[in-house]
Amino acid sequence: MSLLVVGSVALDSVATPFGDTADAIGGSAVFFSVAGQILHPVRIVGVVGSDFPQDALRQLAGRGIDVSGVETAPGESFRWKARYSYDLSSRETLETRLGVFAHFRPRLPDGHRDARYVFLGNIDPELQLNVLDQVRAPRVVACDTMNYWIQSKPDVLHQLLRHIDVLMVNDSEARELSGDWNIYRAARWILAHGPTRVVIKQGEHGALLVEQDSVFKVPAYPLQEVFDPTGAGDAFAGGFMAHLARTDDLSPNNLRRAMVYGAAMGSFAVEAFGIQGFDAVTPAAVDARVRAFKDLVHFEVEEPAR
Amino acid sequence: MSLLVVGSVALDSVATPFGDTADAIGGSAVFFSVAGQILHPVRIVGVVGSDFPQDALRQLAGRGIDVSGVETAPGESFRWKARYSYDLSSRETLETRLGVFAHFRPRLPDGHRDARYVFLGNIDPELQLNVLDQVRAPRVVACDTMNYWIQSKPDVLHQLLRHIDVLMVNDSEARELSGDWNIYRAARWILAHGPTRVVIKQGEHGALLVEQDSVFKVPAYPLQEVFDPTGAGDAFAGGFMAHLARTDDLSPNNLRRAMVYGAAMGSFAVEAFGIQGFDAVTPAAVDARVRAFKDLVHFEVEEPAR
Repeated sequence: MSLLVVGSVALDSVATPFGDTADAIGGSAVFFSVAGQILHPVRIVGVVGSDFPQDALRQLAGRGIDVSGVETAPGESFRWKARYSYDLSSRETLETRLGVFAHFRPRLPDGHRDARYVFLGNIDPELQLNVLDQVRAPRVVACDTMNYWIQSKPDVLHQLLRHIDVLMVNDSEARELSGDWNIYRAARWILAHGPTRVVIKQGEHGALLVEQDSVFKVPAYPLQEVFDPTGAGDAFAGGFMAHLARTDDLSPNNLRRAMVYGAAMGSFAVEAFGIQGFDAVTPAAVDARVRAFKDLVHFEVEEPAR
Repeated sequence: MSLLVVGSVALDSVATPFGDTADAIGGSAVFFSVAGQILHPVRIVGVVGSDFPQDALRQLAGRGIDVSGVETAPGESFRWKARYSYDLSSRETLETRLGVFAHFRPRLPDGHRDARYVFLGNIDPELQLNVLDQVRAPRVVACDTMNYWIQSKPDVLHQLLRHIDVLMVNDSEARELSGDWNIYRAARWILAHGPTRVVIKQGEHGALLVEQDSVFKVPAYPLQEVFDPTGAGDAFAGGFMAHLARTDDLSPNNLRRAMVYGAAMGSFAVEAFGIQGFDAVTPAAVDARVRAFKDLVHFEVEEPAR
């Protein structure tokens, strides 16, 4: 089933204790696409400035991603600069230059309007609603947001919640949106406002899938070396949605499996700078990691025969 | 198999946003015993002052706990006073009065010296070593410690590590002990210094069991209401050790199951103030929660037939 992502395409400059990057390709839609494409074809809609390295777009296309919906506008590309703490547990944004992204008005190419699986990356909720108006009959719409929109456009965001199936946010966003610090009550609040499912990303502690009558937890993969946490949440979303799109199966078991594919993609993302973590990742490597997640949490309830 | 715990028996005064307690029975050995006793008989060794309410000791005995190793010394009981933040994520210790606990020299009654499963609660590592000298032939020795001992008695602690099977600490203690912020590398460091297994307690994020060739993660149970986190880690230890002692089975599967019994006990601990959370907990209720943990993390790797 066709899978579409709308979000940021950026040039990231990131410093961690292990090195740094300058103007490396990044952004929510890029991390989503690069991870998702390993499992299923992804179409990306975004905007870049006239200064954007054409080679970078060609690289995305070379991975098989449909970049025909990436518009080039006159002006500078979206640039983001950040520095992580020594233990990668926190980061400081040093600079955000929106450039052409400030005037981004997503326009879906006609062929993209039949998308059945849609991920709305973190952009203005008015634009997210506008994208939904352009999609004919989506089966699953998932959506990210951030504290900035929760504070500045709560009414539009509440309207958006009524039109999406899955809200995918981190724990601090869930708490701020609901006004409740208990993460399970926060999730219930969200379920009462539209989405039938909420995915709460918890960074190094994994992610939760909360539905009306079920909670599923996937931990983060145990990594002794983490180089750059940037994009892990978007890679998670890419793995989650790509698994759903390729199976077109919304059974409870398959949603849980999608969570694990998401967590696997998140773990590949942090193992290298930017999108490099995905360079050598094959579908077989993803499947192997999914099986490793199974081993990580597996236990038998029954006593063994002795 | 006989199960012994040595640790603090205290009077706790705890304030949370949901209420407070004054001089309620607590301490590491008490939370351990109350949780463990639900699964398997526990013998407790500790000290109380002459002011300790005899009724409280009778209540422990009434639960079936063997309190014959609890010594009463002239002087005041160990008192601990703390206040939790609004979201229970942090706490401030307001007062610690060691009283008779300052001069605690654990003496095992002769009948306790045959213990096969031993838990050394967080006390001076010299005393922990001394307890081990008094136990004839333990099969499993597990041990807790805290930052205070890591800083003040590192040499003794390193000596202790060579004599225990399982180190059970929280994540900040593991990091401080190893000098490594990556929790999996920290665990490997500990494994290289004596224990064959390390359990890392992660509070609201559950716990990890790390062995030479395997990592197991159990999340925390999803609770919409948490009243008092005090004692959750010790209750975890009680569930973990009691399950091992009653099964006397150190197979990989059973160790994982012990982790889940530990997590179940931790979840009961936080649902009420002090040890009250265990008042109505039956073995059947524990088993039901263990099955709920299974559902919380369960997924099938294979695609369903469609």
